[in-house]
Amino acid sequence: MNIIIDRTSKENLTTQIYNYIKRAIHMGDISGGYKLPSTRELSRDLQISRNTVIEAYEQLLTEGYLYTKPGSGYYSSEKVTLNQNRIDPPLDVKEISMEKDSSVIDFKTGIPNLNNIPTKVLGNISREVYQDISQEDLGYSLPQGVKELREEIAKYTAIYRGVKAHPDQIVITSGTTQAIGLVTKILKKSVSPIALEEPITKDIREIIHSNNGSILSIPVDESGLIVSRLKKLNFKAVYTTPSHQYPLGSTMSLERRVELIKLCQDKTTYIIEDDYDSEFRYDGKPIPSLQGLAPDRVIYIGTFSKTLFPSLRIAYMILPFELISIIRQEKWLVDLHNPVVDQLTLSRFINRGHYRRLISKQKKVYRRRREHLLYEINRLFTIPCHIFGTPTGMHLAVRFKGINFNKKLLKRIYNSGVKIYRVEEHCYIKGNYRDTVILGYGSLTRNEITKGLEALKLVINP
Amino acid sequence: MNIIIDRTSKENLTTQIYNYIKRAIHMGDISGGYKLPSTRELSRDLQISRNTVIEAYEQLLTEGYLYTKPGSGYYSSEKVTLNQNRIDPPLDVKEISMEKDSSVIDFKTGIPNLNNIPTKVLGNISREVYQDISQEDLGYSLPQGVKELREEIAKYTAIYRGVKAHPDQIVITSGTTQAIGLVTKILKKSVSPIALEEPITKDIREIIHSNNGSILSIPVDESGLIVSRLKKLNFKAVYTTPSHQYPLGSTMSLERRVELIKLCQDKTTYIIEDDYDSEFRYDGKPIPSLQGLAPDRVIYIGTFSKTLFPSLRIAYMILPFELISIIRQEKWLVDLHNPVVDQLTLSRFINRGHYRRLISKQKKVYRRRREHLLYEINRLFTIPCHIFGTPTGMHLAVRFKGINFNKKLLKRIYNSGVKIYRVEEHCYIKGNYRDTVILGYGSLTRNEITKGLEALKLVINP
Repeated sequence: MNIIIDRTSKENLTTQIYNYIKRAIHMGDISGGYKLPSTRELSRDLQISRNTVIEAYEQLLTEGYLYTKPGSGYYSSEKVTLNQNRIDPPLDVKEISMEKDSSVIDFKTGIPNLNNIPTKVLGNISREVYQDISQEDLGYSLPQGVKELREEIAKYTAIYRGVKAHPDQIVITSGTTQAIGLVTKILKKSVSPIALEEPITKDIREIIHSNNGSILSIPVDESGLIVSRLKKLNFKAVYTTPSHQYPLGSTMSLERRVELIKLCQDKTTYIIEDDYDSEFRYDGKPIPSLQGLAPDRVIYIGTFSKTLFPSLRIAYMILPFELISIIRQEKWLVDLHNPVVDQLTLSRFINRGHYRRLISKQKKVYRRRREHLLYEINRLFTIPCHIFGTPTGMHLAVRFKGINFNKKLLKRIYNSGVKIYRVEEHCYIKGNYRDTVILGYGSLTRNEITKGLEALKLVINP
Repeated sequence: MNIIIDRTSKENLTTQIYNYIKRAIHMGDISGGYKLPSTRELSRDLQISRNTVIEAYEQLLTEGYLYTKPGSGYYSSEKVTLNQNRIDPPLDVKEISMEKDSSVIDFKTGIPNLNNIPTKVLGNISREVYQDISQEDLGYSLPQGVKELREEIAKYTAIYRGVKAHPDQIVITSGTTQAIGLVTKILKKSVSPIALEEPITKDIREIIHSNNGSILSIPVDESGLIVSRLKKLNFKAVYTTPSHQYPLGSTMSLERRVELIKLCQDKTTYIIEDDYDSEFRYDGKPIPSLQGLAPDRVIYIGTFSKTLFPSLRIAYMILPFELISIIRQEKWLVDLHNPVVDQLTLSRFINRGHYRRLISKQKKVYRRRREHLLYEINRLFTIPCHIFGTPTGMHLAVRFKGINFNKKLLKRIYNSGVKIYRVEEHCYIKGNYRDTVILGYGSLTRNEITKGLEALKLVINP
């Protein structure tokens, strides 16, 4: 407690403590129901006799400022607070509730099926990690992340994504967001822009801008990024989502992949490969990552937000050797390193096969949801619908020919109990995708999908 | 597994799988001793019959590429890897070991006594958090951090640090490093420099520079920052460590505090108050935080790295209301938010009184270590020694009159088994503290302190 004891004062120590606590309760600095330090603790902290503290507490008890719970100690009374110090935050900073409005069926993208996450297993592993943690692992760690986790990622990505990486080429980051920020920072020596797919998730644009990077937009088609458009342009890196373009869902063809790699080798620029949900591919045709084809040109970004859960905040970069030292330095300056217990928990979770089992389980769920979604679109809508993209991931884009999904229409759809998302939000050049929406199915049951589409039909195609 | 099944190929599916795995093991893409997906998993993933997979696995087993463990599945053999894809990282990125050289007594600062951390309690709480976590808490959360933790911090800092804060004024960050980075970013609209104490921990300077901020250095004396030196200067913020100056250890006097606040109110500039280890104050005279005196001018930064443990990576900022929205936006762009399980674990740890008990326990340890360190300096050294600073925290600075702690001397000291740190490392203006070193005692036992000082004496004062 922030009590200033003045041994030269005429007031005795008991009175000083009594006055301080009484005032703090009155003012609301000590809120009602707050557990006070024990008399032993406080006497030790202030280096005064325990009896002095007991005396002050007893007086406060008698006067009703404190009450006791048997075996648990002293608490401040809720009834005597005048709350003169109570602060009322202005409206613009008041808490926004994160709770889902459960009456709305939300086709949000990027949210995995959270019902299947083995939280019990994760909890047990986390406890185990705490129980046998070393002093080194409690102290400051390495910017690139703990070795155990980088080894698991190297093994996993080699087998499942055709990635070629030594664990020392991996740097653990706080999500893909931080990874993109770090890349933008280390590339800032060159003034050339970063080329982005158009459309692309709008967050990417904001992250690059906030790190003072400039942007070049290159359109995509059903074979992914139109690489030929890059030929005559100057750029320091290309950011791409080749496994599953966001938001349109295309997979970059092998021809385009080779074309892109050759181009970037000629120009000695980097490819930033964002491989956010490629684990979920339903047609049995995984295409090897760009990283596996050109490890010295590709900055590969993978994340556990979609395969495990978003609030874990763990992603990773696999880097060409020439960039590793500078990215480690930059990560150190940004936040030193990711929390160590989380990294160790995740590495044991992967090592024991839980991660692979989870992905296999989720894949089955998503495949069924996707098939159901396609079936229901076909069943319900009589207007021509075009489905974009390949059978991958947790979302698809649908063109409803002739419908303009402006804000007014989206509001009407929302009022009928359904939330869908516009491709236009992610477009730099506006107007090409007014009739196209993104439907995420990762966190919706088949029943919810049907109900959502039925409500949508009543609004746009009655 | 990244196996591409080609149903149009003349090769049957069994052969395709057999060939893929054989090649992957040969090339080292599948490392020796790796557990393969079960036949059920793989058949589900590739959507082929399970018998096809079993057949391929059995063939690989017969040929020695795989072996089995009863009840546990198929593993790749260690003996057949040709490792053609093995990557050998260049020397400059090879792992630096973080393990302490246990033969050296290291007077490192900022490392708490890690023997006392109740890792068992933390592990149990963490498991409990995972077990009753909601779907909302697994998904994306708020940039400012979870409400439960911000409420605990508001209550705690009000009582122990005299801070006045509503939970909505708090933003959780990945350590103090990220907090300083965020502040530098949001202040970048103004081109004026940030004023820093001189000397100050050199990391601060690097973090500000890496966020394109410029710096103004203002000296400290035994009453903290010499505020009068700021009067005629232009600056957008002052960064200060008023409770316990780093590295010199002074506590800013109340007069200086009032002078600084008035000055910053007149200039409408911000005070960044880094309160990194003020919990540990041994003379019973805590001085209220600057934040409590001027909540609308002060950006308060507190951390759990020194009171709990560094690899937790949780710190917090308490902000004037006008800065909250922009800091939340910036945090979102940087890494969205801190991991949620860690935040919930910490909030329950505080709520149940474990945090307070830990601090009280550690304070007792540090007080004894500090007293012992002072006693031993006095006992051992005959040359005049001046101790800087007030009885606070986990380090002190000592001037050994007439000794020049250049790199050569530090090397000799290190070779005698002791590591100490130069104040000069943290100086912008060099030359004033050549005879002054920093001794951290947070992680050293009294026995180690004695042995370290005895060895030091033999080198500098034989």
